[in-house]
Formats: sequence, structure tokens, C-alpha cells
Amino acid sequence: MRASFTLEKSDGTARAGAVTTARGSFPTPCFMPVGTRGAVRHLTSDDLETLNAHVVLGNTYHLMLRPGADTVAELGGLHGFTRWNRHMLTDSGGYQIFSLEPKVDAEGATFRSVYDGSTHKLTPESAVEVQAKLGADIQMVLDVCPGLPAPTKVLRHAVDTSADWAERARGAFLAGASFEMQSQFGIVQGGTDLALRIESAERTMEIGFDGYAVGGLSVGESQEEMVSALGAVTAILPTDQPRYFMGLGDPVGIVEAVANGVDMFDCVLPTRLARHGTLLTSSGKLNLRRAEFQLSDEPIDPGSPDSPAATWSRGYLRHLLMVKEPTAARVLTLHNLWWLLRFVDDLRQSIVESRFEEFRADVHAVWG
Amino acid sequence: MRASFTLEKSDGTARAGAVTTARGSFPTPCFMPVGTRGAVRHLTSDDLETLNAHVVLGNTYHLMLRPGADTVAELGGLHGFTRWNRHMLTDSGGYQIFSLEPKVDAEGATFRSVYDGSTHKLTPESAVEVQAKLGADIQMVLDVCPGLPAPTKVLRHAVDTSADWAERARGAFLAGASFEMQSQFGIVQGGTDLALRIESAERTMEIGFDGYAVGGLSVGESQEEMVSALGAVTAILPTDQPRYFMGLGDPVGIVEAVANGVDMFDCVLPTRLARHGTLLTSSGKLNLRRAEFQLSDEPIDPGSPDSPAATWSRGYLRHLLMVKEPTAARVLTLHNLWWLLRFVDDLRQSIVESRFEEFRADVHAVWG
Repeated sequence: MRASFTLEKSDGTARAGAVTTARGSFPTPCFMPVGTRGAVRHLTSDDLETLNAHVVLGNTYHLMLRPGADTVAELGGLHGFTRWNRHMLTDSGGYQIFSLEPKVDAEGATFRSVYDGSTHKLTPESAVEVQAKLGADIQMVLDVCPGLPAPTKVLRHAVDTSADWAERARGAFLAGASFEMQSQFGIVQGGTDLALRIESAERTMEIGFDGYAVGGLSVGESQEEMVSALGAVTAILPTDQPRYFMGLGDPVGIVEAVANGVDMFDCVLPTRLARHGTLLTSSGKLNLRRAEFQLSDEPIDPGSPDSPAATWSRGYLRHLLMVKEPTAARVLTLHNLWWLLRFVDDLRQSIVESRFEEFRADVHAVWG
Repeated sequence: MRASFTLEKSDGTARAGAVTTARGSFPTPCFMPVGTRGAVRHLTSDDLETLNAHVVLGNTYHLMLRPGADTVAELGGLHGFTRWNRHMLTDSGGYQIFSLEPKVDAEGATFRSVYDGSTHKLTPESAVEVQAKLGADIQMVLDVCPGLPAPTKVLRHAVDTSADWAERARGAFLAGASFEMQSQFGIVQGGTDLALRIESAERTMEIGFDGYAVGGLSVGESQEEMVSALGAVTAILPTDQPRYFMGLGDPVGIVEAVANGVDMFDCVLPTRLARHGTLLTSSGKLNLRRAEFQLSDEPIDPGSPDSPAATWSRGYLRHLLMVKEPTAARVLTLHNLWWLLRFVDDLRQSIVESRFEEFRADVHAVWG
């Protein structure tokens, strides 16, 4: 089903609105926590509802290996499996083509299982089929995402392969039974090469998807290169469909992408940072492992009295972190997700109230 | 301060009532979750309040090493440190004399730190001092707890050393400033030797403590030997002071100890079992790792619709467990503690309603 974007208010090219799928609508800009294997680490679906997340991600590669797409389907799809009633999105395994470096040929990617070493082939068609079984509201096409910097030849090959795979994936999706309940997003590649970015966007739009993602950024390039490559794409994407920047979760990156008209974000960074003791706070990043916090009776972020971590002191949470008590990872994960979700809410409100540029300047002052 | 026991109702030698300390009262029989290093693994003080735990344990050995007793004291004692307003109890490090096998001489025990290998001496006096800084409502004397079976000579030596240490610990406690706010419990040793048990109880009572614990049981002996050694002690302990069985957490063990007049219990077993996927349910233990649960959409325990884990299916929680997602350990820990705390509530209610023998028979039928 074609996912639509409804504009509530724009401020420059930043836009506040809602994305609508077969399941319903969620407000944008929107940050989507990542639940790779069917759970955001240390959290339950109840926790995510309390945090007021609207969309949660699952990962095709991991879930097809454990517990297997058929098992998830049998247990009600990802929604029934995880008991989550809001939106879900599954990435295609494309990110694992970047991170696990499998053998890639014209047909697809051949992975080794991180669980038992067995071999698995993921093709554009099988990625559609697996994601149909997982049953998220939004599925992503399988793409090729090179790390940056990369030679033009590598970027060109990624664009060509991704375009070929996108066409096959779209065909498989439309031939399947799930297209009335699911939306399928295409992914634009092209690295930091503006001409390739525009070409990739045009080829993806020509195939025609239910929404559009920008992939292959935030993988090693500078902020300027990222914004420039992004802007070239968002300038030509349809305005009435959602735009999703894959794998971006830092406050400056989000605010700059929103300034370029992006609606949706995901990133493991806030949860991974939390597990290692790095916190997002109203005055910037805070490394709780620092010795100076041993005797601190202050909360993590005195500027965030509503944080789910506000009950406990820096000294206590630091202690739990240092002795590797899992309670620390949980509380700090709750904090970072709460902080980032509220950050995006505030960002959205600044667009609605036509003070986005002020908000953007404040973010740069603290995080730049 | 002398901790008092107030009887509400007895049924045979099983007793329902309340233990009162300087902090207030808690209902008994009572199961106390173990928060070794200042947190029950995967849980916060908020979780424990939701579970309606009344007393939480901390561990002297671990807390004196990390973050150190002075740090805990500086951050408000264990109550302020963990933000827990109900009762706390600290064990003395005596359990680590059993589990870590340090060098023990007449003066005390010389441990190696599990954190950095450094050497630390714990004496009856220093255990009192450290526990005064930790500031729990109840502190325990340092004792020598041999594993069972053990030769009489070893048991005799443990009784003598424990009695000597108890006298020194009581002296140190009464000479300190915290005795108005804290209660100090003595510990009866003697293994399964009834004469030694009675001698140890008499020597401990002669010194005079604010409450009495039975230690050195549930460490390898049979259920019959355990009950017999316990009964010899509880028969002569004062009836107006609390009785605490250290390190017991299985349903049959608890019901048998309550039948012998015990009021308080602690054990890491329910939380440790949970982390490994073994659950306490209304129909007995359930090993969630079993393959038969892969496709089960039933809750963990259909007989426990109010469990904090009831939202999710066996198939989902099993998957999280198999891929080591920490969410599984958290949800299963919540379930096991919820189950055991409710079990002890039900047990208490059976005493109040004079149907303890019926309850006891039911427990044996399911768990025996």
C-alpha cells in the first residue's frame, strides 16, 4: 500500500506531518528504536509504549536465522510475536551487506549465519518473501550499501545493482499477497556523488515505491558531504510520500536531515551508547564512567526531571555500570531513548510553531 | 535495636505475623530478593516495589569492594544509594567464606577481590563496621559456614569459631553508633549434627541478638536432614524475635521451614533460574529452552494471568532467551520473583485461615 505523507506544517524545507500506512498514522519527524532480533535490548514492548515510540524496527537477516520467518509468522507476525500494536518496519538485510561483507553477486548476497556458520542466500525476491512473513507495516528493498569513502566505480556498481534489485523486489512484492497490508520502500544509493545520487533517486522513483529511503549515508563521510548528498535527493523525491534516512541518530544529524525534508530515522546508536555508559543529556553527551561521578548524588541529567532514569543518582548508576549489573544498561537505555524521542517531539513542535531555525541553532550550540 | 516478632496467627508451628525494626514492620513469612551489588539483576528499586517485595538483600563482600562502603555511605547508605524505602538486610560476607573459600584464621577471613585480585581481610569487627556504613536495617554477624556433608571436627570448629566471632561482633556492634537504627542477627551453625546445632543456638542466644538466623543448611544435605537440624534449633529460639533461614528459595524448602516456625527467607535461585530460562509456575518448574515451546503462543504460566510476563508468549520469550537478548532475563526474573513472592503471600494466607497443612500438601503434590 502506498504510504502517504500529510503535511501539517512546514518551516523552510523542514516538515511536520504524519505518515499513513494500512495500520494507521504516526507523527513525523519520527525516530524509530531498533529491535534487531524482536526486542530493543533490555526493553519490552510495554516499555516502548511507555516511552511513546511510534515505530519499531526489526531485522530481516537476524530474524530469518533466529527464530526463522515461519516461526514469527506462526506466532502472529512481528506484531503478535512481540505484542506491539503500533507500526513496525523491517530492514531488508541490506545493512548486513555493509556490516558483514558477504559475497555479493548479481543474484543476491550469500551470508554466513552469525549463529551457527551455516550459509544463507538473500535475494531481492527472498528478502520480500521473508519480510512478508515477518509482517511489518513497512518493508525495505534489498540494496547494496558501500562504506565511504568509496571509489566511483564501487558507488556506480552499488547504484546499478541496487536499481536492478529494486525492480526485482518491486515485482516480487506486487506479485505477493501482502501488498495490501504492507508498504514497500525503495532505497536511494550513490554515496556522496551527487550525480549518482540523483540518478539513483530517479531510477528508484521510476520503479515506483510506497515510500523512499536514503541509504548509504552516515557511513564514514563528513557532515557536509552527507547533507549535500541528502539534499540532492530530497529535492526531487515526491512530497506526498514519506522519506526515511537510514541509520542516523545523532541530534545534529537528525536536525540537518529534517532541515532537508526527512521524516523518519532509525539508529542503534542511542541504545548502544547507553549500554556503554554514554548518555544523551540536555547539555550534550555525558560519559558516566568518568571517576568524577563516583560520589555524585545528582541525577544523570538535572535538565530532564521526567527521564525514566531520574530516580537514581549518577553515583549509583555509575557503580552498576562499572560492575556490569544489567540494571544499568536497562535504565540508561530507557534514558537515551526517552531523551531522543522527546528531542524529536520538541523538534517537531518547533516546526509546527515556525521556530525550527532557532531550534536548529540551539542543537548546534550544544551538540555541534 | 531488638527486632520483634508479633504473632498474628499460628497454625501448628507455622506462624504468620510481622517483624518490626527501627524502620517499621513487614509481614512474615517473607521472601527477600537478593540484590548482591546494590541491584537485583535486571531490576530497579521501582520494579521491586511493583513486585511488592518488603525486604531486599545487599552483600557486604561485594559492596565493600565495589563501590566501597564509604561511597555507599556518602550516597545515603544502601537505601539512598538504591532509592529503596522499605527494609534492607546485608549479609556479612559469611556466605563468601563458603563460596570463595578464603583463608580463615581465628582473627577473620582473608579474601582475594574477584574484581582486581587485591587482598582484603574481613573480621567480625570490620564486618560490623562495613555494614554500619552500608546502613541496612538488619545486619548479620560474620560466621563460618561449611559445606555439607562435613566431618564433625569441621562442624565443631565452625561452631566454635562462629560463636567466638559472634561475641566479638556483638561487642563491636553495641560499641558502635548504629545500633539504635540497625538490628543485628546472630547465626546458628552446626551442620546436620543435632547436638552441635543446639549448642550453637544456645551459645548464640546467650550472647543475645536482635534476631536469629539459621545458616549452614541447604548446602548439600537432604531435605530430611535439613528439616531435622532446623527443627532442633527453632524449638529453642525465642518466640518473640524473628527467625531467618539463610539461602533457601525452593517452594518445598520454604513450606517445610515455615512448618518449623521460620519467618524470613532469601535465595538467589529464583533470579538465577530465570536468567537460565527455568521458570516457577503453578504446575511446577518449566524449562523454557525446550524445543516444544518454539511455536507456543501460550503465556509462560496459563495459571498466572497476573504475572508481569503474561503479555508475551512462550515462543517469543524462548526466542529472546535462545539468542541471549537481555529482555528475556528481565521478563523471566520479574516472573519468578512475582511468582515466589505471591507464593509466600498465599502461604501466609493459608496460616491466617488455618489451612496451612492443606497448602503444604498441595505444594508437595506439585513440587515434591
